[in-house]
Amino acid sequence: MSETHILQSWTANAAAWTKAVRNREIPSRVRATDAAIVAAVDDLKPRTVLDLGCGEGWLAHALAERGYDVLGVDAIPALIEQAKTKGKAAFEVAGYEQITESGLGGRRFDAVVINFALFGEDSVPKLLRRMPDLLKPGGRLVIQTLHPVVANGDQIYADGWRKGSWAGFSDAFTDPAPWYFRTLGTWVTMIGASGLAIDEMREPVDPQTGKPASVIFIAKAR
Amino acid sequence: MSETHILQSWTANAAAWTKAVRNREIPSRVRATDAAIVAAVDDLKPRTVLDLGCGEGWLAHALAERGYDVLGVDAIPALIEQAKTKGKAAFEVAGYEQITESGLGGRRFDAVVINFALFGEDSVPKLLRRMPDLLKPGGRLVIQTLHPVVANGDQIYADGWRKGSWAGFSDAFTDPAPWYFRTLGTWVTMIGASGLAIDEMREPVDPQTGKPASVIFIAKAR
Repeated sequence: MSETHILQSWTANAAAWTKAVRNREIPSRVRATDAAIVAAVDDLKPRTVLDLGCGEGWLAHALAERGYDVLGVDAIPALIEQAKTKGKAAFEVAGYEQITESGLGGRRFDAVVINFALFGEDSVPKLLRRMPDLLKPGGRLVIQTLHPVVANGDQIYADGWRKGSWAGFSDAFTDPAPWYFRTLGTWVTMIGASGLAIDEMREPVDPQTGKPASVIFIAKAR
Repeated sequence: MSETHILQSWTANAAAWTKAVRNREIPSRVRATDAAIVAAVDDLKPRTVLDLGCGEGWLAHALAERGYDVLGVDAIPALIEQAKTKGKAAFEVAGYEQITESGLGGRRFDAVVINFALFGEDSVPKLLRRMPDLLKPGGRLVIQTLHPVVANGDQIYADGWRKGSWAGFSDAFTDPAPWYFRTLGTWVTMIGASGLAIDEMREPVDPQTGKPASVIFIAKAR
């Protein structure tokens, strides 16, 4: 039910989300996390990049501008439609369930990047177990997500579904979906259980708060 | 200078520290981290264990009670003297500099455990690079340290020396030494740079605060 709710919510909010991202209305992204994910991919010097859960496509476009051959995929047709309105990256509609079941037609990439796009409970470990099949030899998976210890707030630090919120966003946003919270320890174990070895863990600091704005895992197939 | 201060401070506080540990006066240890480090070693089912920076020896004794063949080493003779007054584990005086230079006479262990004993800047990465030489094939390094994101408090989240404090301890404690703060990302990179691969990262939660009381890295030689 929650996994379905996530897809419904992104469909309902596709237009508002596209506007918020393109108008640079999300402060933590502008101050820290956008530059951090671009730098993380840059440092790998990939030729081909898959942007999984690409949304309205800003990251795919930014990476294509830097000369990489980029494919963006997302489960939400309305977001892929927005992504295709500009830029040099290629886009396709593909949901995590489909990728989990059958990959992407045998295509493999030097880097797979997933930027703030892993919200589910069961869907996420299933998707990650597919990553070795999407990576070329020596390829890397790059995941950016909320920093669990910072995002946890005053709740008990433990895995579980959390209520969604559009606090800080415009009135155009509706029906926030729940998301599945994982501790850092759970992320590390889940990535290891996917046949990947963590090379690096970055914690981009938000210069305004002095705290990590996110965590970025960089992992390779074992 | 700071590395020297760390050794001076532990020498000066050896008796007070032994009393505090043996009287179970450190709440986070009693509520969370003592049990967590014992469980982490237990889960590896080692035959031989090296407790590096063993202090007054409680962990070495606890592990020896559980049937493991345990050697505890520490740079501070006054602490090793206390450790030898009880229990079944073996103890030797050996500092990190000595171990970094020449190991431990070729001895190797199924598990090396370092419990809240890595305080320096240069000494720590140098020591960790020695770990593959101290582990048997398939052996594991287990490090418990303060959880950086929680321990950071309101300071900028970045590596650097921090002022020491005996706040919460008795008046018998004196001359707190500075300690070198590392972000989680730096810990992960440093462990990787030591020829080790991280298997697991645990974050024992303090039931009173609901937050991680520490982080435990479990890594194996590559």
